[in-house]
Amino acid sequence: MENDLRPEADWSLHPQLENDAAPVGDLALCRVLGIDDATYPWLILVPRRADIVEIADLSRPDAARLMDEIALASRALKHMTGCDKLNIAAIGNVVPQLHVHAVARWKSDPLWPKPVWGHWAPNPGDAAGFARFLATVRRELGLLASL
Amino acid sequence: MENDLRPEADWSLHPQLENDAAPVGDLALCRVLGIDDATYPWLILVPRRADIVEIADLSRPDAARLMDEIALASRALKHMTGCDKLNIAAIGNVVPQLHVHAVARWKSDPLWPKPVWGHWAPNPGDAAGFARFLATVRRELGLLASL
Repeated sequence: MENDLRPEADWSLHPQLENDAAPVGDLALCRVLGIDDATYPWLILVPRRADIVEIADLSRPDAARLMDEIALASRALKHMTGCDKLNIAAIGNVVPQLHVHAVARWKSDPLWPKPVWGHWAPNPGDAAGFARFLATVRRELGLLASL
Repeated sequence: MENDLRPEADWSLHPQLENDAAPVGDLALCRVLGIDDATYPWLILVPRRADIVEIADLSRPDAARLMDEIALASRALKHMTGCDKLNIAAIGNVVPQLHVHAVARWKSDPLWPKPVWGHWAPNPGDAAGFARFLATVRRELGLLASL
């Protein structure tokens, strides 16, 4: 396992992800980010591994870790929001650094049943609401120690 | 592991997936389907587990298997097509049965950088071309025995 962790030293968050999202904290593999959007609770998981573009570029243990962390983020969003559906995607047509979106959706939301990607520009809510969202995600993911 | 395999007996492919896509074959966990689209090489992986809607509903071993099969399908599409990017997503806003899309994308394709979902209705090519695509996917995935 130690070998898997060494590439972290060469990793840094892509500047566009750093600009577009706020840090939540670090799980075993991924940096978790939150998107400030008033309509869709929206997280992004970014494996802290250098030069990874596709899921298939990850080592097998890292890919299993990513799946664990997708499930963890999904359960957190579901528990926090009571959403009808999670939408999960690794697209990367704009930002090549591998990142996985997890978005909470409702049958009554404005875009349903379309996905948000390519249909929606994040539209920030009030700062206090976003701070509460990030704090709740940290608690749900067991990341309070990183505060 | 045997326990994980028992729910397969209660599983059947959702009728809309059966209608919209063609069977490629079965990996350890997923039924692989191909979408007949002249522009985007497009596969769908459907875990053969009853009553699963979200990735987070899978057992941990099944989730790891799904990740292995996403990587396998990604490498197959990349090798077959030489695409610039794979787009991977579990959306399920229309068909609730858990299914994962894997779509080959090029920087020169008509929708780039938008994802296909919600932007594109599959547009069949010629039957012989689709049959060749399915046969190539079977070969790439080691599924020739299921022909």
